[in-house]
Amino acid sequence: MPSKNSVKVMIDGKMITLGGYESEEYLQKVANYLNHKIRELTEAGGYRRLSPELKNLLLELNIADDYFKAKSQAEALENDMENQNSEAYDIKQELVAAQIELQKLQAENEELKRRLSDS
Amino acid sequence: MPSKNSVKVMIDGKMITLGGYESEEYLQKVANYLNHKIRELTEAGGYRRLSPELKNLLLELNIADDYFKAKSQAEALENDMENQNSEAYDIKQELVAAQIELQKLQAENEELKRRLSDS
Repeated sequence: MPSKNSVKVMIDGKMITLGGYESEEYLQKVANYLNHKIRELTEAGGYRRLSPELKNLLLELNIADDYFKAKSQAEALENDMENQNSEAYDIKQELVAAQIELQKLQAENEELKRRLSDS
Repeated sequence: MPSKNSVKVMIDGKMITLGGYESEEYLQKVANYLNHKIRELTEAGGYRRLSPELKNLLLELNIADDYFKAKSQAEALENDMENQNSEAYDIKQELVAAQIELQKLQAENEELKRRLSDS
């Protein structure tokens, strides 16, 4: 079982202790990402005047949007991968057929050469 | 330019109007996802006793975690895809080489047959 990590991170100017089985590096990355999203929203204007409740909601919607975009990218890639797998399978079948045909022709050629040298 | 949509959604028991260029279906999906995350946290216990600020932080960390997991899945798939592309390229090259060899052998075969029938 992985050991539990505890790491102090700064989120939105507040020091928070995060605990979890994820690595300290990962927890720090998540905190950095949240700070980046908060900075982005703050710079967009209008955000500063919102109530804390609406600020949080906007932030949550924004992160969820990032999540759905990454998820849909992963799904599209999985789809591409399946198509590519099926294409690769077809090419492999074609290669095997060509290799069998090659062996057949090689044997036939040897036989023809043998017959020619006998005649 | 896509038209701006406005859709009323229920998030954490509150009716909110979301506006954006995303489809109504997408905005509803994001709201459903947020409700699902909030329900998950609420059921985990301990969450209910947290301050609104910590509740939001926990929710934000959780969504960010989903985002990083989806992102890392997409990155792994992209990686697999590149390896697969390079493997597929090698197999295609092998197939082309086999096809060239086949043509050569077929021509040789015909020539041998011609010479045999002449002899």
